[in-house]
Amino acid sequence: MTRPDGRAADQLRPVTLTRNWSMHPEGSVLVEFGNTRVLCTASVTEGVPRWRKGTGQGWVTAEYAMLPRATTTRSDRESVKGKIGGRTHEISRLIGRALRACVNLKALGENSIVIDCDVLQADGGTRTAAITGSYVALHDAVSWLAAKNMLTRKQTVETTLHRSVAAVSVGIVSGEPRLDLCYEEDVTAAVDMNVVCTGTGDFVEVQGTGEDGVFDRKQLNALLDLGVAGCETLTTLQRQTLGLPTLDAAGLLEVFRR
Amino acid sequence: MTRPDGRAADQLRPVTLTRNWSMHPEGSVLVEFGNTRVLCTASVTEGVPRWRKGTGQGWVTAEYAMLPRATTTRSDRESVKGKIGGRTHEISRLIGRALRACVNLKALGENSIVIDCDVLQADGGTRTAAITGSYVALHDAVSWLAAKNMLTRKQTVETTLHRSVAAVSVGIVSGEPRLDLCYEEDVTAAVDMNVVCTGTGDFVEVQGTGEDGVFDRKQLNALLDLGVAGCETLTTLQRQTLGLPTLDAAGLLEVFRR
Amino acid sequence: MTRPDGRAADQLRPVTLTRNWSMHPEGSVLVEFGNTRVLCTASVTEGVPRWRKGTGQGWVTAEYAMLPRATTTRSDRESVKGKIGGRTHEISRLIGRALRACVNLKALGENSIVIDCDVLQADGGTRTAAITGSYVALHDAVSWLAAKNMLTRKQTVETTLHRSVAAVSVGIVSGEPRLDLCYEEDVTAAVDMNVVCTGTGDFVEVQGTGEDGVFDRKQLNALLDLGVAGCETLTTLQRQTLGLPTLDAAGLLEVFRR
Amino acid sequence: MTRPDGRAADQLRPVTLTRNWSMHPEGSVLVEFGNTRVLCTASVTEGVPRWRKGTGQGWVTAEYAMLPRATTTRSDRESVKGKIGGRTHEISRLIGRALRACVNLKALGENSIVIDCDVLQADGGTRTAAITGSYVALHDAVSWLAAKNMLTRKQTVETTLHRSVAAVSVGIVSGEPRLDLCYEEDVTAAVDMNVVCTGTGDFVEVQGTGEDGVFDRKQLNALLDLGVAGCETLTTLQRQTLGLPTLDAAGLLEVFRR
Amino acid sequence: MTRPDGRAADQLRPVTLTRNWSMHPEGSVLVEFGNTRVLCTASVTEGVPRWRKGTGQGWVTAEYAMLPRATTTRSDRESVKGKIGGRTHEISRLIGRALRACVNLKALGENSIVIDCDVLQADGGTRTAAITGSYVALHDAVSWLAAKNMLTRKQTVETTLHRSVAAVSVGIVSGEPRLDLCYEEDVTAAVDMNVVCTGTGDFVEVQGTGEDGVFDRKQLNALLDLGVAGCETLTTLQRQTLGLPTLDAAGLLEVFRR
Amino acid sequence: MTRPDGRAADQLRPVTLTRNWSMHPEGSVLVEFGNTRVLCTASVTEGVPRWRKGTGQGWVTAEYAMLPRATTTRSDRESVKGKIGGRTHEISRLIGRALRACVNLKALGENSIVIDCDVLQADGGTRTAAITGSYVALHDAVSWLAAKNMLTRKQTVETTLHRSVAAVSVGIVSGEPRLDLCYEEDVTAAVDMNVVCTGTGDFVEVQGTGEDGVFDRKQLNALLDLGVAGCETLTTLQRQTLGLPTLDAAGLLEVFRR
Repeated sequence: MTRPDGRAADQLRPVTLTRNWSMHPEGSVLVEFGNTRVLCTASVTEGVPRWRKGTGQGWVTAEYAMLPRATTTRSDRESVKGKIGGRTHEISRLIGRALRACVNLKALGENSIVIDCDVLQADGGTRTAAITGSYVALHDAVSWLAAKNMLTRKQTVETTLHRSVAAVSVGIVSGEPRLDLCYEEDVTAAVDMNVVCTGTGDFVEVQGTGEDGVFDRKQLNALLDLGVAGCETLTTLQRQTLGLPTLDAAGLLEVFRR
Repeated sequence: MTRPDGRAADQLRPVTLTRNWSMHPEGSVLVEFGNTRVLCTASVTEGVPRWRKGTGQGWVTAEYAMLPRATTTRSDRESVKGKIGGRTHEISRLIGRALRACVNLKALGENSIVIDCDVLQADGGTRTAAITGSYVALHDAVSWLAAKNMLTRKQTVETTLHRSVAAVSVGIVSGEPRLDLCYEEDVTAAVDMNVVCTGTGDFVEVQGTGEDGVFDRKQLNALLDLGVAGCETLTTLQRQTLGLPTLDAAGLLEVFRR
Repeated sequence: MTRPDGRAADQLRPVTLTRNWSMHPEGSVLVEFGNTRVLCTASVTEGVPRWRKGTGQGWVTAEYAMLPRATTTRSDRESVKGKIGGRTHEISRLIGRALRACVNLKALGENSIVIDCDVLQADGGTRTAAITGSYVALHDAVSWLAAKNMLTRKQTVETTLHRSVAAVSVGIVSGEPRLDLCYEEDVTAAVDMNVVCTGTGDFVEVQGTGEDGVFDRKQLNALLDLGVAGCETLTTLQRQTLGLPTLDAAGLLEVFRR
Repeated sequence: MTRPDGRAADQLRPVTLTRNWSMHPEGSVLVEFGNTRVLCTASVTEGVPRWRKGTGQGWVTAEYAMLPRATTTRSDRESVKGKIGGRTHEISRLIGRALRACVNLKALGENSIVIDCDVLQADGGTRTAAITGSYVALHDAVSWLAAKNMLTRKQTVETTLHRSVAAVSVGIVSGEPRLDLCYEEDVTAAVDMNVVCTGTGDFVEVQGTGEDGVFDRKQLNALLDLGVAGCETLTTLQRQTLGLPTLDAAGLLEVFRR
Repeated sequence: MTRPDGRAADQLRPVTLTRNWSMHPEGSVLVEFGNTRVLCTASVTEGVPRWRKGTGQGWVTAEYAMLPRATTTRSDRESVKGKIGGRTHEISRLIGRALRACVNLKALGENSIVIDCDVLQADGGTRTAAITGSYVALHDAVSWLAAKNMLTRKQTVETTLHRSVAAVSVGIVSGEPRLDLCYEEDVTAAVDMNVVCTGTGDFVEVQGTGEDGVFDRKQLNALLDLGVAGCETLTTLQRQTLGLPTLDAAGLLEVFRR
Repeated sequence: MTRPDGRAADQLRPVTLTRNWSMHPEGSVLVEFGNTRVLCTASVTEGVPRWRKGTGQGWVTAEYAMLPRATTTRSDRESVKGKIGGRTHEISRLIGRALRACVNLKALGENSIVIDCDVLQADGGTRTAAITGSYVALHDAVSWLAAKNMLTRKQTVETTLHRSVAAVSVGIVSGEPRLDLCYEEDVTAAVDMNVVCTGTGDFVEVQGTGEDGVFDRKQLNALLDLGVAGCETLTTLQRQTLGLPTLDAAGLLEVFRR
């Protein structure tokens, strides 16, 4: 059994994280998982949504969207249709939860960060690429806030962004558990799962679906193993991109495998 | 550590499934998980959505909604706001996927079944109650189709609805894994997970979120154990409600615990 | 000429008013006119709409809606369609006007009460059942406000809710004026009228339509007679449900027939 | 007690019906009730709405709207708000029902007539002016169909439009029943009623509302008397405008007063 | 080559400007360019849009719309469709820009003027008629503000409305440059251009489009010459309508031809 | 007077046209005018919009949009707002008209090409960059159709796309006519004009606006001269990008300057 692009079952596609791809946002990253290409921008605005005013806490939210021809056939624009589809809503909410799990909202003060994830080209795994890239864009935005002295007193980038987060898709294709499905694999997968992990290997979110059939505990465990390992690699890439010291390989391994 | 209603950590709330609660639909069930109360109706219509015409296959879809005052404070109607929120979209899609996993769409012929899940009163676990009740309503609708000879040739209720499905929420509250969270527990849960299982204990969907923090593999496993056991009980209740022979307890146990 | 359910022409269907059907709202009533079943909830919120702020007066409004399969065939959800239909708008406005006719809005202070009327099952007369049930829910909500000392100084439940209101449909079917039409009668009625009366037999609203043809003054008078008598009975039921002393039959009769 | 414009209580404002005000529509009438000014156009289109196809019957529908500054203060456009308000919906439906009561839809064949009533200037009674003017525009459109031989075989203008319809508002102002309220009276009326009559004095629709208070049977009767007499005068004006022989005054009187 | 209505190529249609056509607005003009008939109203409101608050400056904006049967075939209402079309947006923005070019927004203080241009009957050139008529309505609204002492200190009508504006369409039809196209010419024009000029012959806006083909510099120049001359005549008509002294013909000519 | 980036008044910013930037569309170009960066994709679909069916002709349309953080401050998504703004509508329509001026729609047969122009980064001139880039994407899509034998009989790329089109903005900044304004210049321009030319120097569209003030004929002429020259250069770049023979410089000059 070989994969469409010849990868091993537990191998990621080539991943690139290009910082500062755009000139205007406080943080911007073009993330590529193989042919999947997502522009993640982090926009800082002073103030918070109405329901949060006066709490002294900030807010982080995310919006995901696809360009109409990011996919093999053109989709109508949601702006033209006048409403956002269920899939878009679902993924935007997932990205927002994943990023908020990393942030000390009190440290932000009453400032907001909006993460925009626009899929320029889709080849499977757009939501996991979006989470992985957005974390880096968010890190840059928090650094920007720190440089402007806009964080709450005594807070630093490290205390504000106290965890990192990365995500990857896994699935069972042709009966085999595989890491980081491309579109061709995604549409034929019997089971599809998204695994969102912190940099220390804990889970932030696990979403597994029997797209075509069901799955048992053993399969679930195999998929989780693959996903956790994939996130470990992505975490290393994120740290390299941000110029942070890579965690001691042995220690990291320990953390992830505990 | 005691639960708000004094239950054991692995204990479901009182569950009732009232068939034929409404006079018009082909299937209708009022499902109650404690104070959570959801009206699930299954509506048969001839024909399928445009994109499915000519395939010879049927379609099953679901729509979830809450009455404005199903909750402790009133929410604005989505019809008045003119758009459906992300949460509503997400849950509708989850219910639809769970039910389609049970149905042989070819057996339906080009007929559609729309499942409507309207929450009349909410006290946590509305989406899992909705899935559990909808399965029974769907069973009645498929029986209606069979009685009208509208299934594809040689198909029966059993071959059309080849699996059953039930769902329950689990979560970590005050550090303890608990089954079937009520609202008071849900809002304080560190981890929240929805487990959707077939009648033979396989997974259809697993969605776990670290609402406030993260979770490790051991916690994930504890939650899955609780969820699978809860679904086992719900399956038995569904079969009793439908007047189907209860699976041999020992055999079932084996299936669920394998 | 017999009616589908064998009633006399001037006979109501069995009416039930179940108070406290829901746990969350300040007032909640499940009203049944035969098979028609409407959940009426009254939700108190502090504050008033923007255009009313600073007037010292409260506000009462109503929203009517039908579950998609309350009817013999499924209707699309207005939330999914993204807009509210003319019929829904019209009935919501009618209910709101009827209830506001009973309330001293100054006595409420700057508090709002939203009445939600959700039709769980429809068999004709949903709007009149909704008005009749909502009055009882509104009474409970005003009592709740009184108990919380939220009414304006010196105001009581009685001065705040200075009238009661009930409503019933009447129509000409097979040439015969009939009270409280069921759906089967409603669709074949030549004339259809809704009569909304106070507890003392005055009119709050009268809406008569020649659905299929026209009507003369004599027919109009016959319909009004039936409607007023029907409201009288409904008023008695409302008072019984609320545990209020029933008006002296003779006196009431006098009031209604004057 | 004098009225703002010095009229008698049972006197209409000056009414004008200007046919062919617009060049494009098959029928177009500028109707004026005093300062109230409504442009009514009747547009013929071949074909009927989807739900009516294949029935061999036509369709008549109406849409009512106000220009933003038809009123004393400017209202936002419903097109800009993206949705139609309840009042607009309600009035459009009323006009449509009133006109359909006059038309033999089978005689139209599968043709549609859309009546557009756009209020250019509002001073009370816009919906009743709209009905009164639209009837004349509809008559012209049916004549156009007849001239084009588009009516069903053997049908004529008279058999297609077998009744006429006119409407007027009545109300109780300062304790006095009055005919054809202007805006200043409308806003202070205790009771407000719209009476829609055929040319022979039968009712098509009666809608009475206690805007500020309630009303008894005696008041209702006084209002109906005023409304019927007002419609009688409007019918005469419609016939004069259309160049139809005026009904014998004595006979008409008899018809109206029977 | 003759035009459908026999005009010379450089001749306007009969133009009328009827002031005070409506009773409610601060300024209202019915403008007619031949059969094209547009109602322009100017509504003054205290206050400005949120984004402009605190600037001490006023705001002028415009909304353009067509009645459904202003045209040869009926168009659906944008309010019913729930959204505004591109053409409507485009023209509204054009009118707004043209009028703002005439106004000293500081002189208005924090007051707003909304211009509504509703096309009652369309026969080509609706947007240019709208601009030409709106200027007169705007002048009346500014005079109203001046009379109420609502302009900023020391400001007058003349300093507030420091320029006038008029507009006309030009195009190449059957190879010939023509002024003020009617609908029949408009649909067959190879090039279509709208010219918006101040009262002293400067350009505010020029929009030329090769509807069916392209155009060269010489053609562009011929069209501009026609358009400027047309605006000159319209300016004279505007001044006459407003009772302003007509500019000395020689001087004006000089201004326009410089 | 120097420009923000030191260019001469008649100098374009660095322009790049990157073909095949995306893998899925039939044509895709990333166009850059300095820091302005627009992704233009051309999507071929079989069939045409309903109103065009049966004509034997194809259709070309365009949709323009901006990513939320393409600009210096984040804008809300039009999909989230549920409606498209006037500016977006206006630009989409402009691009569509410009491209249709190049295409023989009969040659396309009943096939559609949708051009999507998504602004990834904005620094002035996004609409003119979009037109310039889209032409190249459209050329690739037409070549794709030709290669698939989907053009009408005997038609070639050259007869189908019988003209080329390019566009550039010009404006008066600090009193000086300048070519290809960047954002900083755009916001301070007294006059802003977009010039759309064919490859042979004819005009397809000219839109000039006095953003802050007005302009006279001499200024208009200076701007047109700049715009035509800019389009000439862009045409050469388009041809180089497409690998087409560059027009003889002398001949081209003659064409452009005639």
